[in-house]
Amino acid sequence: MSRYWSALVRELKPYVPGEQPRIPDLVKLNTNENPYGPSPRALAAIAAEAGDDLRLYPDPEATALRETLARYHGVRPEQVFVGNGSDEVLAHAFAALLKHERPLLFPDITYSFYPVYCRLFGIGFEAVPLDEGFGLRTADYVRQAGAIILPNPNAPTGVALPRAEIEALLRVQPDVPVVIDEAYVDFGGESAIPLIAKHPNLLVVQTMSKSRALAGLRVGYAIGDAALIEGLVRVKDSFNSYPLARTSQAGAIASVEDDAYFQDRRAAVIASRTRMEAELRRLGFEVLPSAANFVFARHPEHEGATLAKALRERAVLVRHFAAPRISDHLRITVGTDRQINRLIAALEEIL
Amino acid sequence: MSRYWSALVRELKPYVPGEQPRIPDLVKLNTNENPYGPSPRALAAIAAEAGDDLRLYPDPEATALRETLARYHGVRPEQVFVGNGSDEVLAHAFAALLKHERPLLFPDITYSFYPVYCRLFGIGFEAVPLDEGFGLRTADYVRQAGAIILPNPNAPTGVALPRAEIEALLRVQPDVPVVIDEAYVDFGGESAIPLIAKHPNLLVVQTMSKSRALAGLRVGYAIGDAALIEGLVRVKDSFNSYPLARTSQAGAIASVEDDAYFQDRRAAVIASRTRMEAELRRLGFEVLPSAANFVFARHPEHEGATLAKALRERAVLVRHFAAPRISDHLRITVGTDRQINRLIAALEEIL
Repeated sequence: MSRYWSALVRELKPYVPGEQPRIPDLVKLNTNENPYGPSPRALAAIAAEAGDDLRLYPDPEATALRETLARYHGVRPEQVFVGNGSDEVLAHAFAALLKHERPLLFPDITYSFYPVYCRLFGIGFEAVPLDEGFGLRTADYVRQAGAIILPNPNAPTGVALPRAEIEALLRVQPDVPVVIDEAYVDFGGESAIPLIAKHPNLLVVQTMSKSRALAGLRVGYAIGDAALIEGLVRVKDSFNSYPLARTSQAGAIASVEDDAYFQDRRAAVIASRTRMEAELRRLGFEVLPSAANFVFARHPEHEGATLAKALRERAVLVRHFAAPRISDHLRITVGTDRQINRLIAALEEIL
Repeated sequence: MSRYWSALVRELKPYVPGEQPRIPDLVKLNTNENPYGPSPRALAAIAAEAGDDLRLYPDPEATALRETLARYHGVRPEQVFVGNGSDEVLAHAFAALLKHERPLLFPDITYSFYPVYCRLFGIGFEAVPLDEGFGLRTADYVRQAGAIILPNPNAPTGVALPRAEIEALLRVQPDVPVVIDEAYVDFGGESAIPLIAKHPNLLVVQTMSKSRALAGLRVGYAIGDAALIEGLVRVKDSFNSYPLARTSQAGAIASVEDDAYFQDRRAAVIASRTRMEAELRRLGFEVLPSAANFVFARHPEHEGATLAKALRERAVLVRHFAAPRISDHLRITVGTDRQINRLIAALEEIL
């Protein structure tokens, strides 16, 4: 605490990201990174940017990247906003679209950055409880609200909603902004992007950090009606004109253009998840049905914190949340075959 | 305008960066980029990061980069904050340190992003007039205020204050945060960093975009008392945990470590500035004394907008501000010898 801080800073409770420790031979299954590397074409494009032109500012509008994403998703470039990871895109969306007189609605168990943004921007919110099986009932969001944000698949549960349910919600909530946070959608969810044409209040947020294995490059984006995108641009241009390095823009473009690699690796992650779920169930875990690159599981006879600690002692890192309702769960990222074998062997030893 | 926008968005007047057009054989002297490329060691470090590890998040605390900067500037790592360009660092500083009940003070002619941040964060401010010769009198800032931000050298004037004047101001204003924005300091200014040990209210902001020729990489930083830095970290971790790509962190570290290259190129820019100033004076321009990598000049017989337009028609881009007091001035970035020759030849043709 410092007398030079603004009143805002005193009130903040910052987000705590999963740790990035340096433990030799670590099986790192705590931050939902992709077990496979990025597209070789993306890597080549990044290396090619490491030249004299780095003395120049990047394109502040990231035109080429937005055009590439627009082509890929079948929308127009003015319907695409890009930012420094989907966290920055979400931050701008909270400031530009989710702050209204009535409260913002989101699930009680969800991405823990949402309440942090609310405190930063002074947004009132209501946490809507998931059902007993950690399912999200869209009917619970049919009520007076300033705006709605839903992750789909949800995090940290991994549970996905069918697009038809999102559509039904949009139909009865046409007057408030609805953000669907699709950080994990490529691992088995149904994207809401096809609904954008009909619903000018819908913003879909995606990231290149998970399915495109580019967490180290910091690129996220949003797709929605051009007027929503303009709102995001206005906030971004009041904050930081150039959030994406030249290297990041180049790598992101090449990644989107290499669809064969993308399809191959996400299929591999999905196959590994199926095996990981089966192994965990064999060991007695209750595993939620996941459409993400992680699973959310609890063992009926073991505390979550104890299990996470025992795994860590065996150089296997998973994410544990000391939060109501989920303190006995572990969120475990889908790893390579070798990493999954190490995880299962460690659990067999512990249990 | 959209009914889905927050009230905040409706009120914003975003910053307009200098344009980044694609004109063949353009002499681009409008955004204060370095005419020389980055350190070859920085380029090699960036290319070396283009590997499988990009699937992993970067270090959210940028520990290695902060340690490198701390060593370079003779401070401790906890006195260093890094961000996505100094624009993002400034944005966090406005939110964390410059928002108080009393107004923020800054010059009337200065970096035009400052009032934009104030609108974004709801900060009251007073623009303190420069004197008639565009000089900044620190005595004008000895008054009741919530906080103070001064660029040194100032932009777009290029005029620098001696460190002793900053120190004198700090001595009489110990109770309010004072930010010194040193984006251009390496081209001839005196940094206030040595004053940090004695003044816990001082934050110095620098960037790698200008003197280190890394505008395309997006790295800026702040140095100050650990408590000020902690305030910035709290805001950053409520906004975006990972603002710096792995490639950006690696390139920035290597650039700081290559001091011989840095010293050589900044000396070259300073020498070119001297020549450019002399040539402009020969053509009848009034040129302010610059300690930056640009000069601020007006011709007594020609309107600024007309000159800028005529230069643009000759593929020479300079920055013109349609703002009170400076609408007849041009801000011209120091280029290579060849670029300066092209500029002078174009001006000879026009005048």
